[in-house]
Amino acid sequence: MMSPLTSAAERAQLAMMLEVCAFPKPGNVDRCHDYADTKLEHFLASTIFARPALEEAATGKGRIGEIIGHAVKQTNVHKGGNTHFGAFILLIPLVYGGGIDGAVQAVARTDVSDAVAFYKAFALTNVRMNKTDEIDVNDPKALDMLRDRNMTLYDVMQHSAPNDMVAREWMNGFILTRRGADLLHQIGPGREAIVEMFLTLLATEPDTFVMKKHGRAVAEEVLVKAREVMDGKKVLETLDAEFIAAGINPGSLADITIAAIYIALSEGWEWDS
Amino acid sequence: MMSPLTSAAERAQLAMMLEVCAFPKPGNVDRCHDYADTKLEHFLASTIFARPALEEAATGKGRIGEIIGHAVKQTNVHKGGNTHFGAFILLIPLVYGGGIDGAVQAVARTDVSDAVAFYKAFALTNVRMNKTDEIDVNDPKALDMLRDRNMTLYDVMQHSAPNDMVAREWMNGFILTRRGADLLHQIGPGREAIVEMFLTLLATEPDTFVMKKHGRAVAEEVLVKAREVMDGKKVLETLDAEFIAAGINPGSLADITIAAIYIALSEGWEWDS
Repeated sequence: MMSPLTSAAERAQLAMMLEVCAFPKPGNVDRCHDYADTKLEHFLASTIFARPALEEAATGKGRIGEIIGHAVKQTNVHKGGNTHFGAFILLIPLVYGGGIDGAVQAVARTDVSDAVAFYKAFALTNVRMNKTDEIDVNDPKALDMLRDRNMTLYDVMQHSAPNDMVAREWMNGFILTRRGADLLHQIGPGREAIVEMFLTLLATEPDTFVMKKHGRAVAEEVLVKAREVMDGKKVLETLDAEFIAAGINPGSLADITIAAIYIALSEGWEWDS
Repeated sequence: MMSPLTSAAERAQLAMMLEVCAFPKPGNVDRCHDYADTKLEHFLASTIFARPALEEAATGKGRIGEIIGHAVKQTNVHKGGNTHFGAFILLIPLVYGGGIDGAVQAVARTDVSDAVAFYKAFALTNVRMNKTDEIDVNDPKALDMLRDRNMTLYDVMQHSAPNDMVAREWMNGFILTRRGADLLHQIGPGREAIVEMFLTLLATEPDTFVMKKHGRAVAEEVLVKAREVMDGKKVLETLDAEFIAAGINPGSLADITIAAIYIALSEGWEWDS
């Protein structure tokens, strides 16, 4: 089912490009909306710059933690800050493993060196840390602690999973990635399907990035509001404006959306029809 | 002056990405406007897919006509049709030669094999042929004719130059590419400079793509209207709407804009500030 016209790295780049262009995407950067510090062009520049790391992942060789680190470093050359850290946590294993089954095996095989490489990459980004996280990436002792406890990168994700739906994908067989890809197949071809898929996830899965930033109540309100749009009680553009005004940006679902587009493209879903 | 953070191929990709996102860009596809058959995502997909050909060009080895052919083939895998044919005619020599001086030398060294490879690539695209062009790319005899006349790719561009400002760049030392890059340096950093640069070119250089499609009178009217925007007599968004309604898309100036951004980026101009 793999498209003969594109490589795995190219499909991953297409997924990143299609996700950020899709609009209106409530609260997130899209074709018609920038953040003050991170603009459409920053996301698209990262999409271009990630190519070598994605090609490295596509070889299925080397260490996942290190390759995620390469992706973060390669994309950390513009002033837009972190754009795809969460996306790389999903995309790199998926590209490396040639799909979800291979990714599940790959993440289970990570070791402490992956965890160390990952934390070093993490330190380069401005990713919001959960206050309850024990391992502070800015603490030089953190790397020693990883080594002392012999924590693999899988262990790190397990540690983060309760509060982070991206990390949770490593634990649960990429269940939301799978669901997003299935939704794209169901909805049908064309870029418009991405908005509908995103909205469906938004109406059913509390975004953990929103939760870390605004608390559980706000994250659950997001579900209700997305549901209202799906039920025709609210216009999508209105929800987008509301979220932007409130600083609600469902970034973790955006990461999962990218992974889902990648899987769907690899299974023959057509963005372009 | 070359930025240490990006490769030549990446700067060429950035130039393609920044050009298509810049808005409002009167008449052309931009962040907020698609054509019916060619959408923002098609231009961005081509930007992703062109990477191998751009990297090939960056080696400074191989034959320019063939590398342009590779770029056209690599980007011809979506349903958006030709997006960057004219841009590649400029970008490939510029990347190959490491700048304008090297490009001038490289285009002078083309031979009949470049011309043949170019025409074979040309046949893949839907580029509008000038009715007065003698060499019909859809005519199988065209390739024989190139060989019989021993026409180099430089000769082909010379043949096209009277009616094609992109081909003319090969003849005149990339004079508009240079001017566009100088404008970016003068206007200053940031993506907004691209729109101002494009508008300045639009107000001074009749777009030959518009001329082939609509005739000389319309192409010259474009200059007057762009001038009105620069003089504050008309709003840019109004001009954009007028051009879109009339099917006026200054595609050759878009190609030159891409080349100019590439040169400016390579000389240290910052898109991202």
